[in-house]
Amino acid sequence: MGTLFIWLDLIGTFVFALSGGVLAARHRLDLFGVLALSFATASVGGIIRDVVIGTVPPAALSHWQYPAIWLVAGLMAFFFSNGINRVMYPVRIFDAMGLAVFAVAGTAKALDAGIPPLMAPLLGVLTGVGGGMVRDMLLAQVPLVLRAELYAVAALAGGMVVAIADVLGWPAQPAAMAGTVLCFGLRIAALHRGWHLPTALMRPPPRD
Amino acid sequence: MGTLFIWLDLIGTFVFALSGGVLAARHRLDLFGVLALSFATASVGGIIRDVVIGTVPPAALSHWQYPAIWLVAGLMAFFFSNGINRVMYPVRIFDAMGLAVFAVAGTAKALDAGIPPLMAPLLGVLTGVGGGMVRDMLLAQVPLVLRAELYAVAALAGGMVVAIADVLGWPAQPAAMAGTVLCFGLRIAALHRGWHLPTALMRPPPRD
Amino acid sequence: MGTLFIWLDLIGTFVFALSGGVLAARHRLDLFGVLALSFATASVGGIIRDVVIGTVPPAALSHWQYPAIWLVAGLMAFFFSNGINRVMYPVRIFDAMGLAVFAVAGTAKALDAGIPPLMAPLLGVLTGVGGGMVRDMLLAQVPLVLRAELYAVAALAGGMVVAIADVLGWPAQPAAMAGTVLCFGLRIAALHRGWHLPTALMRPPPRD
Repeated sequence: MGTLFIWLDLIGTFVFALSGGVLAARHRLDLFGVLALSFATASVGGIIRDVVIGTVPPAALSHWQYPAIWLVAGLMAFFFSNGINRVMYPVRIFDAMGLAVFAVAGTAKALDAGIPPLMAPLLGVLTGVGGGMVRDMLLAQVPLVLRAELYAVAALAGGMVVAIADVLGWPAQPAAMAGTVLCFGLRIAALHRGWHLPTALMRPPPRD
Repeated sequence: MGTLFIWLDLIGTFVFALSGGVLAARHRLDLFGVLALSFATASVGGIIRDVVIGTVPPAALSHWQYPAIWLVAGLMAFFFSNGINRVMYPVRIFDAMGLAVFAVAGTAKALDAGIPPLMAPLLGVLTGVGGGMVRDMLLAQVPLVLRAELYAVAALAGGMVVAIADVLGWPAQPAAMAGTVLCFGLRIAALHRGWHLPTALMRPPPRD
Repeated sequence: MGTLFIWLDLIGTFVFALSGGVLAARHRLDLFGVLALSFATASVGGIIRDVVIGTVPPAALSHWQYPAIWLVAGLMAFFFSNGINRVMYPVRIFDAMGLAVFAVAGTAKALDAGIPPLMAPLLGVLTGVGGGMVRDMLLAQVPLVLRAELYAVAALAGGMVVAIADVLGWPAQPAAMAGTVLCFGLRIAALHRGWHLPTALMRPPPRD
């Protein structure tokens, strides 16, 4: 994990916190609710990853930079949410960047912790999408990532590049860059072209 | 944990993944959503247990067999969900088998990790019902197991057999078999006879 | 952690379990659901804290006193929920006491585990409000603490007293008492005067 990745990780934390906070403000949560969703969106994916690979306390709880970042992002979301809504397209670009970095860094951390290469990308996906899933669960909604958009697949692709490089003994740094670029590119392309995954062909669902 | 239990554990993973995937397809989740619910239903209960007893990384994330199984089950649920719905009764039999195995194996693993016998069956219950609860939470619904059917009680009974045998110094293998059979039998009987737990006697709930 | 704190911790467990069980009964959950929500409300905040700071198995799962307490409280909620509703004001006083103790004890345990003083109060807040949030998520509702009332802020204030005392090298016992009193006082004052946090100024939310 070079300096570049630390920076990207912090940027990812910031934009994820911003998106969680804006959504919380839209749902009329109070100041604590906005900050809590900023934290959850930005940090819970990485915390779950760190807990399951045995790296406790998680980085997001033991380095002051992370709370500082999601606190600032959450306060921005609270006070300027109308303005942020108007610039949501740039936020989506940053969000794609955050997804890419989290997926790649999550996969790399899982490999370091001895998770087999076949499973490490799953932890990368969890790092990338877990925070957003918890954010949506806290809003009592089915997580968006389960229903629509090519989001988790982009994260999976990025993580797989890292895992494949690890298996083949390729150098980690360029592989991480390639994985980040691939995930970011897939996500941006999906946004522009409306790519999404299929849903199962079914008769109308029963009332339950 | 003999070979029999490893096989039953893998069967439990398969049928739980199938049930999660079918429910996800019914709720119109996309392919990622179906696979995510297969994973959550099959593995999250065991992952939570492993994390709280300190066995990290959890087996479900460090052995390739588990992802292979829930992946296959999830894809089957995605492509054949109509057909699977028609054979739901056999699936329920397998589900009861999965519940029994997970409850008993979860209790045994908790005892191994030094959890007192009084609490170990609770971790067995968590292993058996935790995945389904997270599945329902991801679908923004009150978990079925909290509302209806004799499900958790069957798991508790199975786990208690294992814990009592542990306290009394009886051999573990036959106790595990007895617990599995008891849990399975209770669950099947509850299905056939419509047994369920009582709800509290209350005046109509206030609007909140 | 003196004897006083152990007692307060057990009282906190009891009142939180009672509040979770009563809410579950109101939502027509069955007996297992009532007990599960008693457990979740009383113990999940502390379990998450123990897991992220690496104290596994968590106290709530390795000491029999905790299950005994939430079991009794859950059964009381199940059988006497109408009566308990009528005495809800005293329950709220106890709930404020539980919040105060959990926030202060959670912060102290986090500091002991090496979490930096800047972040330790966040774990205190998590200990105090985490159980209630999971309770509400299990009921498929947006957690009350995210929407209304001065609840988490009181927990944060209590935790910060402990963390500041730690930084300045003040004795821990009086600081813990002061933090508990401050949190309890803020929460009671908020209840009496209707204090709550602001929500973001926004145009009507988009339909999503």
